[in-house]
Parts: sequence; C-alpha cells; structure tokens
Amino acid sequence: MNRIDGREFNELRPIKITRNFNKFAEGSVLIEMGETKVICTASIEDKVPPFQKGTGKGWITSEYGMLPRATEVRNPREVTKGRPSGRTMEIQRLIGRSLRAVVDLEALGERTIWIDCDVIQADGGTRTASITGSFIALADALNKLVEKGELQKIPLKSFVAAVSVGIVEGNKLLDLSFQEDANALVDMNVVMTDKGEIVEIQGTGEGGPFSRQNFEELLDLAAHGIEQIIKIQKEVLSDIADKIGVENVEVDSGNSQSQQG
Amino acid sequence: MNRIDGREFNELRPIKITRNFNKFAEGSVLIEMGETKVICTASIEDKVPPFQKGTGKGWITSEYGMLPRATEVRNPREVTKGRPSGRTMEIQRLIGRSLRAVVDLEALGERTIWIDCDVIQADGGTRTASITGSFIALADALNKLVEKGELQKIPLKSFVAAVSVGIVEGNKLLDLSFQEDANALVDMNVVMTDKGEIVEIQGTGEGGPFSRQNFEELLDLAAHGIEQIIKIQKEVLSDIADKIGVENVEVDSGNSQSQQG
Amino acid sequence: MNRIDGREFNELRPIKITRNFNKFAEGSVLIEMGETKVICTASIEDKVPPFQKGTGKGWITSEYGMLPRATEVRNPREVTKGRPSGRTMEIQRLIGRSLRAVVDLEALGERTIWIDCDVIQADGGTRTASITGSFIALADALNKLVEKGELQKIPLKSFVAAVSVGIVEGNKLLDLSFQEDANALVDMNVVMTDKGEIVEIQGTGEGGPFSRQNFEELLDLAAHGIEQIIKIQKEVLSDIADKIGVENVEVDSGNSQSQQG
Amino acid sequence: MNRIDGREFNELRPIKITRNFNKFAEGSVLIEMGETKVICTASIEDKVPPFQKGTGKGWITSEYGMLPRATEVRNPREVTKGRPSGRTMEIQRLIGRSLRAVVDLEALGERTIWIDCDVIQADGGTRTASITGSFIALADALNKLVEKGELQKIPLKSFVAAVSVGIVEGNKLLDLSFQEDANALVDMNVVMTDKGEIVEIQGTGEGGPFSRQNFEELLDLAAHGIEQIIKIQKEVLSDIADKIGVENVEVDSGNSQSQQG
Amino acid sequence: MNRIDGREFNELRPIKITRNFNKFAEGSVLIEMGETKVICTASIEDKVPPFQKGTGKGWITSEYGMLPRATEVRNPREVTKGRPSGRTMEIQRLIGRSLRAVVDLEALGERTIWIDCDVIQADGGTRTASITGSFIALADALNKLVEKGELQKIPLKSFVAAVSVGIVEGNKLLDLSFQEDANALVDMNVVMTDKGEIVEIQGTGEGGPFSRQNFEELLDLAAHGIEQIIKIQKEVLSDIADKIGVENVEVDSGNSQSQQG
Amino acid sequence: MNRIDGREFNELRPIKITRNFNKFAEGSVLIEMGETKVICTASIEDKVPPFQKGTGKGWITSEYGMLPRATEVRNPREVTKGRPSGRTMEIQRLIGRSLRAVVDLEALGERTIWIDCDVIQADGGTRTASITGSFIALADALNKLVEKGELQKIPLKSFVAAVSVGIVEGNKLLDLSFQEDANALVDMNVVMTDKGEIVEIQGTGEGGPFSRQNFEELLDLAAHGIEQIIKIQKEVLSDIADKIGVENVEVDSGNSQSQQG
Repeated sequence: MNRIDGREFNELRPIKITRNFNKFAEGSVLIEMGETKVICTASIEDKVPPFQKGTGKGWITSEYGMLPRATEVRNPREVTKGRPSGRTMEIQRLIGRSLRAVVDLEALGERTIWIDCDVIQADGGTRTASITGSFIALADALNKLVEKGELQKIPLKSFVAAVSVGIVEGNKLLDLSFQEDANALVDMNVVMTDKGEIVEIQGTGEGGPFSRQNFEELLDLAAHGIEQIIKIQKEVLSDIADKIGVENVEVDSGNSQSQQG
Repeated sequence: MNRIDGREFNELRPIKITRNFNKFAEGSVLIEMGETKVICTASIEDKVPPFQKGTGKGWITSEYGMLPRATEVRNPREVTKGRPSGRTMEIQRLIGRSLRAVVDLEALGERTIWIDCDVIQADGGTRTASITGSFIALADALNKLVEKGELQKIPLKSFVAAVSVGIVEGNKLLDLSFQEDANALVDMNVVMTDKGEIVEIQGTGEGGPFSRQNFEELLDLAAHGIEQIIKIQKEVLSDIADKIGVENVEVDSGNSQSQQG
Repeated sequence: MNRIDGREFNELRPIKITRNFNKFAEGSVLIEMGETKVICTASIEDKVPPFQKGTGKGWITSEYGMLPRATEVRNPREVTKGRPSGRTMEIQRLIGRSLRAVVDLEALGERTIWIDCDVIQADGGTRTASITGSFIALADALNKLVEKGELQKIPLKSFVAAVSVGIVEGNKLLDLSFQEDANALVDMNVVMTDKGEIVEIQGTGEGGPFSRQNFEELLDLAAHGIEQIIKIQKEVLSDIADKIGVENVEVDSGNSQSQQG
Repeated sequence: MNRIDGREFNELRPIKITRNFNKFAEGSVLIEMGETKVICTASIEDKVPPFQKGTGKGWITSEYGMLPRATEVRNPREVTKGRPSGRTMEIQRLIGRSLRAVVDLEALGERTIWIDCDVIQADGGTRTASITGSFIALADALNKLVEKGELQKIPLKSFVAAVSVGIVEGNKLLDLSFQEDANALVDMNVVMTDKGEIVEIQGTGEGGPFSRQNFEELLDLAAHGIEQIIKIQKEVLSDIADKIGVENVEVDSGNSQSQQG
Repeated sequence: MNRIDGREFNELRPIKITRNFNKFAEGSVLIEMGETKVICTASIEDKVPPFQKGTGKGWITSEYGMLPRATEVRNPREVTKGRPSGRTMEIQRLIGRSLRAVVDLEALGERTIWIDCDVIQADGGTRTASITGSFIALADALNKLVEKGELQKIPLKSFVAAVSVGIVEGNKLLDLSFQEDANALVDMNVVMTDKGEIVEIQGTGEGGPFSRQNFEELLDLAAHGIEQIIKIQKEVLSDIADKIGVENVEVDSGNSQSQQG
Repeated sequence: MNRIDGREFNELRPIKITRNFNKFAEGSVLIEMGETKVICTASIEDKVPPFQKGTGKGWITSEYGMLPRATEVRNPREVTKGRPSGRTMEIQRLIGRSLRAVVDLEALGERTIWIDCDVIQADGGTRTASITGSFIALADALNKLVEKGELQKIPLKSFVAAVSVGIVEGNKLLDLSFQEDANALVDMNVVMTDKGEIVEIQGTGEGGPFSRQNFEELLDLAAHGIEQIIKIQKEVLSDIADKIGVENVEVDSGNSQSQQG
C-alpha cells in the first residue's frame, strides 16, 4: 500500500515541538505533526471549580478551538453559532481527562491549569496532537510553580501522549492524515502513558463493525506510535526531567525536530 | 465482592422492554435496565440532511435528554442554559454512530430516522440502555416501511446492543449502576453486534491509567453481557425476525421480561 | 353530536393516576387523561428564589416540557432552538400560579418545591392534566416533610384541579382531545378548587368573539368536570387525607383507575 | 374606599390617543391611560408566515417590549439576557390573538400586519392599553391598503378593546394602576368587542381562589369599562368609520382627549 | 446644492429637547433633531461594575436601542436574534465613552449612571442625538443627587454634544439626514465639548479614501455645529447652570425650541 | 521620555510579515509588530451576501478573534459567552470597511473574500496590525484569481495600512504597546493609503477631551508611521506588484524583516 505522503503503515509524520511559543502563558508549545499545527498553552489559576473546592485537590481543564481557515474549506467560527459544536466539546473533554489521569491533583493543590489547544492548521489528528503537545505545556507550567517555590516537584505521575490509528482500504495505518481519516472504516484514538498503560481508547466503526482481531492489531500499532512520541516528549523536556515525579525519564532521539521558540 | 444489589460481577440487571410504548411514533420502547428507564422513539422523516442529499442514502440521527428529576438530585433543564451539555452531545453522537453502523443506508433510501432517547429515571448505563432500546424502536419503525410496501426488507445488517463495564474497588464489573459508576477507576462503554463485532469502544481511566491486561478482561466481560442482551432483543423482535436482513435470528429466553405496551 | 371517542359532551376521558412513578422524587405521578400522559414530579429544595428570601415564606415553581415525539408529528427539542417557546413559558407560569394559590406558603417556610411536568404523550389538555397531576405529586412531597417532622401538617388550603372546555362545531364540550381542540372556536382552561372557587380562567376566542351566555355555560361545564376530577384526587390521596390542612377530604369513587407505582 | 388617584371604583383613567405618532409606520398611535404610555405601530408586509402560505388568508402578529426605564426601577433589556421573558411572550401572544379575532383574515389576503407595542412608561395595564391602542394603529394601516386600492373595505369585523379589573383590599376596581395591581388578590384582563362579546378572559387568583360571584361582578365591571373605551376608539376613528366593515360606528364623546399627531 | 429639506450646507435641523419626559427616571429627555427622535433616560444605581469597585470612582454606562418601526422599513427586534448587533454595541460604547469624558468620576463616587437611549424615530444622526440628549438627562440625574444632598456640585467638567458631517455628491454637509447619510462617501461623527475640545472623532471613507484637506474642512463644519448645539443645551439647563462644575455656562438663544414636559 | 522598549516617540516596532503562513488559505500571513502577532487569512467564496446579490459587485468581510492566552491574563473564549463582545464586533467591522475602501468591488465581481484575523499574541495594536497584515493576504488571494485567469488584474486601488498613536504621560507616541495603550489619555487608530489619503480615523479621549492642536499632531505622527509600513508592504508584495492596479508600487527597504513561510 502506498500512503499519500509515502510513509510506511506504521510510520509517524515528522513531529516538531516549539516550546515557549507564547510570551505570556506559563507553558506553551506549537506542536506540528506533519501539516497539523496546534498551539497549546497552559495557564495557572489560583482557584478550582466549585465541585473541587475545599478538597485540597487541583484541577486540569481544557478548551479546544480551530481557526476558521485551519481547514481546506473555511469553517464558520463557533462563536457565530453561539455555542461550541458537539465535536469540540467531545475533544476538549477528552484532552482534560487524558491530562488529569497523569497529574497528582493532590500534590498540585487547589489550583486550576487551563489547557487551551487552538488548531491553526488541520490535517488530521488534531485531538491527539493536542494531547501530546499539551503535556509539554502542562509540564512547563507546573515547572514554573516549582521554580517559584510553590511546589517541590512537578506533580506528574507519567508522561502521556496520543495517536490515531485506523483501517483505510483494508490497511491498518498509524497517525492518519485528514485524507486517510476521511476514508477510514475504523478510526481509533488512543492515549497511553510512558509505561504503556492505557488512559483512553475511543474506537469507532461508523463504516461498519470490525473484528476483535482487527481491534487488537490497531491497538498494538497505536502503542508502537505512542512509544516513539513519548521519546520525543522526553527529549524535549530533558532539561526539567529531574524535577518530574516520573521514573525513567531517559532521553532518546527520534524522527523529530525540537526547537526552543 | 458484594455488589449493592447482590448481583454477580458478570451479571446484568433485569431487562424489561415495553414495545409500542408511544401511540404516535413509528417505533417506540420503554427500556428498563434495573432502575434505569429510557423511552426510545424512532420517527421517520422523508428527507435527509443536506450533506446526504442526492446520494440515494438515508441517515440515522439521535437526540438524548434527561428529565430534570431522573436523577437523585434534580438537574436543571438544558433548555434553561440554552444549549445541550457536552455530555449530552457526546451521548447522542454515540447513539447515532452505533445505529448507523448496522443500517444499510443505501437500502433505506433518502429517509432520516430520528431516534429520541429520553431518560425518565437514571441509575447508571443510560447511554448503553439507549442504544439497546433504540435498536428495537428502529427495527419497528423500519418494519412500518416494509408493511407500507416502501421497503422490501428491514434494512438492518446486524443486531446491536451496548453495555458498560468498569473496575470498582479492584473488581471488574458488568453493567454498572450509578453508585458503582461513580466509584469506578476505569469506565468503559462497549457497543457490539450479534456477530461479536465491535461497533464502538470508549474506555476511560480518569482515576488513572490501566493495563492492557485489565482492558482485555473488561472487553471480554462486555462481550459476555452484550451476548445476553442481544438474545433478549431477538426474543422481543421474534415476530418480525424473518423480515430483518440478518442471519441467525434465533430466539432464546434470558433473564428478561418482555411485554407489549 | 358524536364525539370521536364516543363520549358525552360533558364526559371526562378516563383518568389514571400512578403515584410514586419515580424512584427519586419526593413526589411523583404519571397522570393519564385518555391518551394524554404526563409525568409530574415534585422536588424539594431548601432555599427560595432571591425575591422571597427573608420573608419566611416558601415558593412553588414549575417547569413544563414535551418529549419530541409526544405528538403526532415529531417536534424539535426546545434546547435545540436555545430557549423555551412562548407556549411553554405560558404553561409553566400557569401551573406555578395554580398550585401557589392553594399552598400556605408561610406554613411551608423558606423552601422551594420544583414541579416538573413532562408530557410523554399529548392528546390535548396537557396543561390541565399537568395541574391535576402535579397537585398529587405536591401533596406527596409535602407529606415527606411532615413524615420527616419538618412540618406538622401538609400546608395545603384546598385541592386544585383543571380541565379544558370549548365550543366545537357549535357544541360545548368538556375535556377536549387534541383533534377537538384543533377545531375549537372557543377554548377555555379552568382551574378550580374543591370548594368550587376559581383559581384561574383563560378563555380565548381566536376563531372569533363569543357571547357572555356561551361563556357562562362553558364555565358551568368546567366546574362540573373539575368536581369529578377532584373526587378522584381525593380518592388517590385518601391515605394522607387526614394530614392535609383541608376540610372535607371525603373519598368518593369515580370513573378512574388509581394504582400505586 | 379611596383610590390613590381619587377615581371611583368603576372609573377609567383619562385616555389620550395620539394618531400618526410615527412618520414611517402604516398605522401608529401613542396611547396614554393615565401614566401608562405605549407606542403602537402597525407595519404591513406582503407575505405570510409559512403555516399560512397558500391559504389565501392573512395574519396579524404582535411583539411587545418595554423601555428599560419605563418602570420605577430600571429593568435590564431583554436583549441582554438573550431572549424575551415569559411575561413578554405571554403578552405578545395575547395581543396577537385579540386582534386576529376581529380581522377578516380572508378579506385581508396573504399579508401580515406586524403590531409592535413598546411601553415607554408603565403604570399598570400595559397589555390592555396595547390592545386598545393597537386596534387604532391596525385600522389606520388597513385603511392605507384601502386608499391604495388594494382592499375595498377595511377588513375589520368589530372594534376591540381591553381593560384590567381586580380585587384590591376587598374592593372590585376598574383599570388598575401599577400600585393597585401589585396589591390585587385577583387580577383579570378582559378583551371585548363593541358588541359586548368576549374575545379573551384571563383571570388569576394568585393571592388565593375567588368565588364565581366575585368573578361575575368583575366581568360586569370590565364590560362597563370596555364600552367606554370603545366609544373613544370610535370617536378617534370617526373619519374612516364608513370604510370599516362594522355596523354602528356612531361617535360619542367621553372622558378622553383625542389629538392628531 | 439643494438639500432635501432646504437647509444650508452648514445648517442644523431644528432641535427640540423635552426635559422630564419620563415620570420615573432621575433624568430624562425626548430629543428631536428634525425627524430623528430619541428618548434618553439617566438612572442612578448605588454601585459600580466589578472593575471599578473599591476605587472610590463612579461609572457611566450606556445602552442603545431602536424600536422596530423607527425606520422606514420595519427592523426585527434584536432580542429576537438573541443579541445586540455590532452596530448597536458600537453606538452604546461610543455614548458611554463620550459622557465619561466629561464627568468627574471621582466626585461622583461609587455610583453608576445608566444611560438608555431608545430611538423612536430614525432619520439619521441617532447616535449623535443620543449623546446630545443624554448629556441633559445626565445633568438632571446628577442634579437629583445634589438636591438630595448626596453631592455638593454636579460633577460635570464640560458640556458635551455631538453631530455628524459628511461628503454627499461632492458637498460637505452638516447634520446628515438618513437619505444624505445613505449617499455619503465620507461619514464622520464628532463629539466635542463647550471648550471646543475633541472627545471622539470617527471618520470613515467606505466609499473610498479622502484627503486630509477634506477631513479638516469636515472637522471645522462639525465644530461649528456643535457650538450651536451646546448653546441650546446651556439654554435648556439654565435653571441648574450654577450648580454645574463648569465655567461659562452662559445662556444664548438659538434655532431651538425648548419645552418642559 | 523613555519608552519601555527604548523606541523613539516616532518609531515603529519591528515588523515581520511571513507570507503563505497557512497551507490552505488563498492568502495568508503571520504579521508581527513587536510582540503582537496576528494570523491573517483571506478565503475566497463564490457568492455574495444577500444585499449584494445581482449587483455584479463583490464583498470583503472580516472576522476577528483572539486566542484565550494571547494576553497576559487568560481571557475566556467568546464562544463560552455565546457571542462576540462589542470590542470584537467593532474591530471586525473596522477591518472590513478599511479593506473595502481600497478594493474595486465591481472588478472583483460577485465573490466574497473572507478575512480572518486571529491574534495569537497581543501587545497592543492588534486591530491595526490586522489591517496591515490582511492587506497582504487579500492581495495574495486576489492574485490567485488572476493566476487562475478569473480576473485580469488584482482589483486593488491602493495599498492600505494602519497604526495607532496616542498621548501617554504628555508625550505623543507612535505604535503603542499594550502598556502604553493602557496609560494613554488619548488613543487613535488611523487607516491610510499609500497616497496619504484617510480611510478611517477613530480618536478617543476617554481620559478627557483633547485639543485640536494635539489631534493634528497625532494625525501627522500616524501618517509618518503608515508611510513606513506601506513601504514594507510594497517590499513584501514586490513579486506581484505589476499585477496590482495601483500606481507607484516602488519597493523600498525599511526596518522590517520579510520572509516567505
């Protein structure tokens, strides 16, 4: 099978993470996975939502947006319709859950970290790129709290990253581009940690049901991709690795470019 | 482990499906899974959404709601806030996708079936009960088209049903009640066909990541539950089984009560 | 004149009230008037709206909704349009006023009772059925406060019920079905107490003005109907009759079926 | 009993109707009932709402608003909250129904008359003043169609006017001011024609139920008031009286001031 | 050049200011500039918006609206669309800024003055008439605070008024009517004080760019018009002139009619 | 006077324009003025808004947004509030007017160009940077139409750019940073063409009125700044200069960096 961009079935697109992309945010990156580009910022707020008040625990919340011309055809702004679409809500809930799963909320204390993921160019995989990039922005924001002496360690329990996999014309493919995604019979988004644990799996067969066998192979493919992505995350964060409450933060070079903004 | 209601870890709650619950709808059921009660109606409209026009194919769309006092504490109506919540949107998109996966949209022709799932009492598993119940309402609505001579066969490719599974205090449980769901570290919703194929998997570890091993066991548990649920569906629909474009519509009695409304 | 369903001009449809229809609500009924079916719940909240704070008085408020396929043709959900329709607002204001008129708000104390009326099947008279049914749910919820020792008596000053009347093809009819209502030149909703007092009258001649004579006859017809409905209410509530602060709670069997849910 | 402004129990406030108050509208008045002041305009549109298309019949629709400082304490604009209140919707539906009852929609043909009632000062009775004033604006707008040769006669079947009555401190009063209305135990709005027919009655006993006897006396009082109001309407419209399809358009001077704007 | 209404190029339309137009507001006027008519009210509230709390300073805020039939063709109400248009927001922000520029907010203390400008008839220049009229309403409201002894002087630093100018068919014109405005290639709104200082200039060449020379001439024309308008304002307010914290409040008769309501 | 960033009073911040920043849009730039960064895209649509239909003329419309963390403190998304703020509406109307003033809409034909300006980092002057940057994106989009043979020349009548000026602590300054803007007593935004003509002037003295003399000096300062900005625009567009319907497209190097993306 020939993928549009010449990749192998199990090959990620080139990943580029530009740290400190934004002057104001406590943490920020521009993450590029091929032609998909997302700005992720992490903002610290010194209070928590009502349901978390008085628990001593913090919160991670996320919002997601797309510039109108991030896509091949211009999309109307959601503010024009007066509310976020179902797709947007689904994605921002997913990002929030995925990051919360690896944060020690107790250690964070009664603070909220706002994660904003804004897609400036979309070529498939915007939600998974958002999770992968936000993790870096989150780590940097948490590190600010360590540097200011408000926390002793970065309260992260694991690295977390995400990737999409799917079945396109009978082939199981890793990291779908928009074109591939549009033709996929099965589409899965997988979020995993650096220990190979599962944080979230969303697999859909809108084109029709699929076998358990296919499902397992797709999950293997995703695990393989996430392993590589997390290597890149670790490389990018190597300067603060020792402050993260995670074992095994070894650096390892991959098919990425990492650059400080 | 003792479950609140005395069930085994792999035991479903009693299922009761009241067909033709509503006088007007082309298809309708009241589905009860334990104390969870959902009214599902299927309404036929003789046109399709703009993106489907001229394709010759039909569409299945779904909306989901909850009465304010379906829950232990009264919930404000969503209309009061002016828009459906993210949770509502997520659920109605899931129901729509799950049903579309088993409908032969080409055979349906340019018609839309509107599936409305309204929860009148909620004790966990409302989205999975909605899928299971809607399938019956959908089959009945499609059968109306056969009876009117507009279709030759009921254009269903499989039966489809759904169930939740999760890990509660270290135990893997089938068909979580609200109380169990609230304490689950891992929560999964699984949608499968009568052939054991996967339509949708959504697994979340907000309480923290979980191992692949645990994931596989949960999936087995869900498959076991769905198998039983589909037996009940087949029993309920035994009168129109021969018109459904599905092989193996054998009837089989289970731990259910079925009753005509 | 022959009514569609064979009733006499002054005959009510069969009334069926299923008490404790909902597991969670402090009071709840399913009321059926012929094919019109409404779930009414009463929920207690231990605070009052801002305008009532510090007065020592309680409040009764009501919300009304209709499932999309309660009607012959599916109606879009109001949440989709972002706001309740004028009709919905009119009805829920009417229900609230009608119930407040018979509650001793001072005796209730600074509590709000939320009345939710959700129509699951609509065949005319949904607002009057809502009032009649809500009164039972309200009485049960208030009784919960008596049982918990928070109130000494159920703070109700009267029974209250409602019915529609109208002029259809020159005939004055009691308790209009949807079909009759759609053809009525004059349409009235009347709310009265068990003492024959008026709580609310809304009479409309959109088909054209009508004489005072006709008006008086319609009012007599409504009074006749409400008398019978309140007999049924008293029968349904006979077990808590002695706790209601109302004289004359004699029971009397009518053309109803009453059943505990 | 002494009313605040020295009126008799059955006395209207001074009525002043300034015709052609607005330069652009096909019909327009400023109506003043005591300190209550409402601008009513009638605008002609050459099409009807979808449900009326192809019937050959016209439509009358109404919208109602209040300037923020029409009241003693400033009220936030409804546009700020994003939607009209229940009270506003109730009122504009009432105005529309009241006027439609006296228009020959068939003779009007497929046109919509938009009635806008905007309260610039509110001292009770704004909805009844709106109906009374709008009738004049409507007649003038319809007359424009006659003058342009599009209609042969003004398609009005009756005059229509409205007034409020109520029980305040045990007294039955006509045409309540805001202060009286705020203290009324019973509050009724009555809409009647020049033939003494009823178009709409809305009577509410939020302060508690009231007897049929009281109801009848209030209705008599309202009929007495409306009779006088319609005399003023006829005087105001005396120049086009012969073109209105109504018998008995005799002029009669009352306690009013009429002035051309 | 002949202007539609026979005015000279540098001639204002007749201005009529009716003070105390509204019974309830602390300050209110009906301002008429030719056929443009705006009701301006000033309402005092004893608190300030959050951003001003604790500063010891007051605030002036403004809202602007238009009756649906203020214009030649009926405009839908903004509440129907659920939000104010961009034009409305722009205008109300302009009015607020213009008045704040001449109020001594410190002397006002922590109070908000709400300025409501409601256009009842629109023939061009509604935003400038709103500013001119609101200034009078504001002065009267502030005077109420002086009369009640809450302030010692009216905390106004200058008079302020506004006018439009534009280039129509090559002619520079003062105080454009709607017809002129619709044909203007350049359109400017100018807000100035009685000292000839600039408060706000908004000049737009949507029909195409214009020269600095033209701009200067338009600005001169506006200054000339505002000088005359402020003379009228001073005449109208002559009774409270000595209480205003402004020098030079000499009265001077102009081409106006002033009348107490 | 010492400006925060060491600039002279009449010195622009460094300008950097990255063309073709977005893969999909017909025209796109990232414009940076100091730390202010805006993505501007131009999207072609083959139809016009209703009011322009059948005129043979095109339309330019603009939308403006800001990422939540573009600012020092995170701003809630406008979609969360359900509508664009007054400030956003004001800005997007300004951008649209400014560009329309230099486009030959007749030559463009019945097409709409959508201009989207999304601020990814805000340090003052976002609306003026949006205008300056959008002009480049617009030119590139129009050039696409020339390249596809749909237009013969780029239908631009002038170059257009914008800058802010203001009075800060008594100094008249060019191109205000956020900090300067927040302290400005007078704040002006000026839009001019390459011929030195005025397209739009918005000058506000919220801190108090200002003299005509000051106004003129600010305008001179703005003209000086815009002249330099347009030199940079001409340099950036030098490759397509001959296709623009503008005289004098001479290139001239300034204090800018220009780079192809």
